[in-house]
Amino acid sequence: MALPTLETTQYSVDQGIATITLNRPDRLNAYNAQMREELLALFDETDADDNVRVVVITGAGRGFCAGADLSSGGSTFDRKADSGDLSRKSLKVGDVYRDGGGTNTLRIFESLKPVIGAINGPAVGIGATMQLPMDIRMASTKAKFGFVFARRGITPEAASSWFLPRLVGMQTAMEWCMTGRVFGAEEALDKGLVRSLHEPDDLLPAVYELAREIAENTAPVSVALTRQMMWRMSAAPHPMYAHRIDSRSIQARGESEDAKEGVNSFLEKRPAEFPNKVSTDMPAFFPWWDEPVFE
Amino acid sequence: MALPTLETTQYSVDQGIATITLNRPDRLNAYNAQMREELLALFDETDADDNVRVVVITGAGRGFCAGADLSSGGSTFDRKADSGDLSRKSLKVGDVYRDGGGTNTLRIFESLKPVIGAINGPAVGIGATMQLPMDIRMASTKAKFGFVFARRGITPEAASSWFLPRLVGMQTAMEWCMTGRVFGAEEALDKGLVRSLHEPDDLLPAVYELAREIAENTAPVSVALTRQMMWRMSAAPHPMYAHRIDSRSIQARGESEDAKEGVNSFLEKRPAEFPNKVSTDMPAFFPWWDEPVFE
Amino acid sequence: MALPTLETTQYSVDQGIATITLNRPDRLNAYNAQMREELLALFDETDADDNVRVVVITGAGRGFCAGADLSSGGSTFDRKADSGDLSRKSLKVGDVYRDGGGTNTLRIFESLKPVIGAINGPAVGIGATMQLPMDIRMASTKAKFGFVFARRGITPEAASSWFLPRLVGMQTAMEWCMTGRVFGAEEALDKGLVRSLHEPDDLLPAVYELAREIAENTAPVSVALTRQMMWRMSAAPHPMYAHRIDSRSIQARGESEDAKEGVNSFLEKRPAEFPNKVSTDMPAFFPWWDEPVFE
Repeated sequence: MALPTLETTQYSVDQGIATITLNRPDRLNAYNAQMREELLALFDETDADDNVRVVVITGAGRGFCAGADLSSGGSTFDRKADSGDLSRKSLKVGDVYRDGGGTNTLRIFESLKPVIGAINGPAVGIGATMQLPMDIRMASTKAKFGFVFARRGITPEAASSWFLPRLVGMQTAMEWCMTGRVFGAEEALDKGLVRSLHEPDDLLPAVYELAREIAENTAPVSVALTRQMMWRMSAAPHPMYAHRIDSRSIQARGESEDAKEGVNSFLEKRPAEFPNKVSTDMPAFFPWWDEPVFE
Repeated sequence: MALPTLETTQYSVDQGIATITLNRPDRLNAYNAQMREELLALFDETDADDNVRVVVITGAGRGFCAGADLSSGGSTFDRKADSGDLSRKSLKVGDVYRDGGGTNTLRIFESLKPVIGAINGPAVGIGATMQLPMDIRMASTKAKFGFVFARRGITPEAASSWFLPRLVGMQTAMEWCMTGRVFGAEEALDKGLVRSLHEPDDLLPAVYELAREIAENTAPVSVALTRQMMWRMSAAPHPMYAHRIDSRSIQARGESEDAKEGVNSFLEKRPAEFPNKVSTDMPAFFPWWDEPVFE
Repeated sequence: MALPTLETTQYSVDQGIATITLNRPDRLNAYNAQMREELLALFDETDADDNVRVVVITGAGRGFCAGADLSSGGSTFDRKADSGDLSRKSLKVGDVYRDGGGTNTLRIFESLKPVIGAINGPAVGIGATMQLPMDIRMASTKAKFGFVFARRGITPEAASSWFLPRLVGMQTAMEWCMTGRVFGAEEALDKGLVRSLHEPDDLLPAVYELAREIAENTAPVSVALTRQMMWRMSAAPHPMYAHRIDSRSIQARGESEDAKEGVNSFLEKRPAEFPNKVSTDMPAFFPWWDEPVFE
């Protein structure tokens, strides 16, 4: 897959781990339409490349992402203003412009590879909400977070009203979004937004260690299925919905070469070498859902 | 809006913060039909009054709310007994009397203003469940809580089976409701039911400080939208449901005077003065849902 | 009700508390088809026996349940292999074999009695996922947990993708299932999977103390209703769904002999003696749902 020229991000793959770096360090990696497009393309790439087992997202320089680029001033969020950098005609469906951040978080939601956020510094607005569909967030002690939308006269976006209460509970989600306060890494850890805190220099090594634990021990097809099962069944109305998919998955995966290798390697106390690939070996029942469309 | 004569509650508004005080201190503010009616009227008032940015609920005297008034004895919960103070004919739909507590919690759920519980003392039965649709609960170290329904031969009400697992997780919700135990403020904090504990004299000042943080920094229309987005999307089956509303909201709010002021005040490092009002400036897409009816 | 001969479990009832012991201690109580059948029969028994107020599940010997019996080696999870002990023809619906673990967890989900897991030792694979529909988990300090499916080339089963995020949040659920790591009791406590840790010899006494607190203080019909209300409403799309059932339940239970006894015993400061029984006195509106079928 040919990637577009990356103007606002960097991308590399090493030992099964892809790293996407938000790369506008002179603007604390502020989000703009170009970054939106690049992130969409990069997740297509990580899904398609069997060499990628885990995706890490971090920021260049001292910030993670300072939010929407406000260089257009008061018309930043005005979709009718040509000057608004986020006013993308391509996002118009009928009379409605789709929220750009939401196109990114929905894409991350659909990722076939686990996604770990390495939150190295301030993460505000879309910089905070884009983290929510990632599976795990690890943060520098210098990270800060702000769901500042109500202070800017707008509202939480990027589907964060769906994600945030699931991650930190309603009480905390409400306080963060209703005050719009910027808060520190300790509060993010205490409330469960981030998994762990690390000294700035220790953050990426710790993230890569966790990523390698996934990459080195598990079957890629199993992980891809698990990710979608978890996100989607967490919102299903009854456990029968999970049971229907579990049954198909245990049947399909149970007769796979991966399952034989998984059990045999365990019984033989040796590392497993799983043969199945995400690009070619996802089971016939996948995807089992009809993705809801924008309307 | 003309409020009814308040016999069981007190009401005041100061600096953008409405305070509703449950006011039957000789009975630990036990809940009765009159209190039900007054609470419904008061939330209509707080929604309608643009001067109200945040609603605080607390109790007069040493209790928050001791639960249903049991002065009718064994027939307290018997809807067919005329003596039952809660047997309101007005709540009958077909053959079913609506649960009175549920009419209050559904009304709080629909509030356009943030609601903070200041739990000053014992909160049992409906005194515990009426807190659940509030956005934030702060408690005195002398507060106590009890989901005592199974000890009275009835079941949790006020839609608490919907709210409580969302706030504290299933394991804790089950233990509290299946034992019916009365527990202290420390356990409520530890399990996430309340946000913070305060010495009795420090409770209201801390609650008002948080309320002012919301009132002084955020756009009222943004907060009203945020509140409904969070509560409703937290139960939606897929993040696309949030994305649809986010897109409409970012578009409508993005071109508002509030958004211009929000960005400009931020860039100019000054307090924002948001012009939009909840009474007149809610966007055209609001409400975006069909409220389910009682049947 | 006649129980089948118990080959892989033990069963006893004492003072209102049923204890189900997984009983293949020479294999760390590894799960097989016989255990599946016995567990299904035992939950029919605990539901039918009014003497059973609470169900406790624990393991014989030093383990809780080491997961699927892997004695069939690489074909363990292959439904087409006759040698596969879990390949039960009886589980075939159309072209799909139902996941056996899911039949157990869905049955526990439907239990009319509270279920407490006494996790005495290693609990891996189905040994970890079968705990999730239990209401409360208490663990020995020697317990270990592992959602190891991705390391075996299969996927989480037993409807765990529905249950686990509800219990520990998405971030922790993802880490545990994507690494497949075996982790200790402290991590299980810290993340909220288990309610409390106990020295090995103190575990069952603590479990029975909590079970007695339920059995001695609460109305059996109230608890049976509460259990289903909590599990089912926690996944409902709007609190109105809870309000509809609450209203019917408060009406039916409010006029019951249990409610009179519950209030009178409270006012008289004496233990309650609730007359209603689960076998004969569940209200007419129960069950209020159409159970989704496997398809």
